[in-house]
Amino acid sequence: MNKPQVPDFLQNIRVVLARPNHPGNIGSAARAMKTMGLSRLYLVEPKAFPDAEATTLASGAADLLERAVVVQTLAEALDDVTVACALTSRRRELTTPLATPRQTAPELIARARDGEQVALVFGNETFGLSIEEVEQCNRLLTIPGNPDYFSLNLAMAVQVMTYELFSHTGVDVEYLRPDGEAATQGEVDGMCGHLGQAMDDIGYFERRNSERLMRRMRALFNRAGVLREEIDILRGFFKQVQRAADGSLKRDGD
Amino acid sequence: MNKPQVPDFLQNIRVVLARPNHPGNIGSAARAMKTMGLSRLYLVEPKAFPDAEATTLASGAADLLERAVVVQTLAEALDDVTVACALTSRRRELTTPLATPRQTAPELIARARDGEQVALVFGNETFGLSIEEVEQCNRLLTIPGNPDYFSLNLAMAVQVMTYELFSHTGVDVEYLRPDGEAATQGEVDGMCGHLGQAMDDIGYFERRNSERLMRRMRALFNRAGVLREEIDILRGFFKQVQRAADGSLKRDGD
Repeated sequence: MNKPQVPDFLQNIRVVLARPNHPGNIGSAARAMKTMGLSRLYLVEPKAFPDAEATTLASGAADLLERAVVVQTLAEALDDVTVACALTSRRRELTTPLATPRQTAPELIARARDGEQVALVFGNETFGLSIEEVEQCNRLLTIPGNPDYFSLNLAMAVQVMTYELFSHTGVDVEYLRPDGEAATQGEVDGMCGHLGQAMDDIGYFERRNSERLMRRMRALFNRAGVLREEIDILRGFFKQVQRAADGSLKRDGD
Repeated sequence: MNKPQVPDFLQNIRVVLARPNHPGNIGSAARAMKTMGLSRLYLVEPKAFPDAEATTLASGAADLLERAVVVQTLAEALDDVTVACALTSRRRELTTPLATPRQTAPELIARARDGEQVALVFGNETFGLSIEEVEQCNRLLTIPGNPDYFSLNLAMAVQVMTYELFSHTGVDVEYLRPDGEAATQGEVDGMCGHLGQAMDDIGYFERRNSERLMRRMRALFNRAGVLREEIDILRGFFKQVQRAADGSLKRDGD
């Protein structure tokens, strides 16, 4: 199976970092975005940008930093956006309903697919988003986690949020699966029959309930999802067992 | 609503880092684990541990490093484990079926809940898991992502995987929601009626289709999920509008 494409509509989803303090976090956030197919980064009043540390930590995602849009206010970053999601981990006295990334992702994907501009807005590393920043957004998202230690750092939060979005694009990992051909039920039955024969030939069924044993073996191989190549290996082994049984029977008969 | 507890059974899920090179990654991984309620860290042949950089990056999760189990072989880390998941991002010529964290998480949670020991196994930063390491696992997981840039770093992969697990524990973000009381449909109807009255009083309906306008207004407020407090604010405003209308009518009549 061929490698799938990153869907074009992901370009309609931007990440906005509001007042980031550490250039390294900008770089790590860019890398996180790119691993999940996002490419548009907005920086509101970054303390230092561009910066060598950002470029280093971006690794292969330095292209996102080059195309990053630096603005002075959050409003500029959201001007053409229809859905702006404020990421927060604090309890807030706001009446915007609080949702999880998983609950909201399908809507965000649907809107991006329709050509609307969507923003994921992350606050300052120490202070998070200000109340004024949150009020410029029309969605409030919290990543679920340990209620006693909610210390997801900025780039980690970007990673989780973009992972969640990507998982709703329908791009599968199928292309990473090896091509092993699954055996048919007929082939599995034939192999099990052969196993039973070999067990019988080698004298394994004496004083044992062969039907019950074979039922268990069939269940095991059905559960395992046997591949054609594995059937060949097993039947080769069973043949060898049968030859040995034949030889030892001959010797017994000598 | 009270803060929920991290479920005890998450203690049955361990993170195993095989041959980690950089102490900083061990610290970041510990922090990522703790944000998602995991606490048991195994280190197979770490290049340097304990290490000051690990402790720094663990931030509030240094307790996980103190209790980390250092072993010399992966087999030791998996000895009492029933389900060992190898995290991989490469195409592998292995016949273990490749699944995503989301597909596998419900099974892992169910087993941990039943008291089985589950392991999430992550490889070396540069080389990933060796074929021998993968073969000691009975699940093969890949985090879906950009097929052209799959460069999730070690701690990011731990963060995404543990986030995915946590999201299946049923621990909600409900406790972070403010307590604003939702208005009943009767209250919304009453408020819309009041709005219609105020619009009429101020002469807004002249030459306009009042029914259509009010239908739109009702739809808007239904969609918004109005809170009781907001109803009070709006009705206060409408009263003021009606008073003004009354006054200006009086003046007109002077």
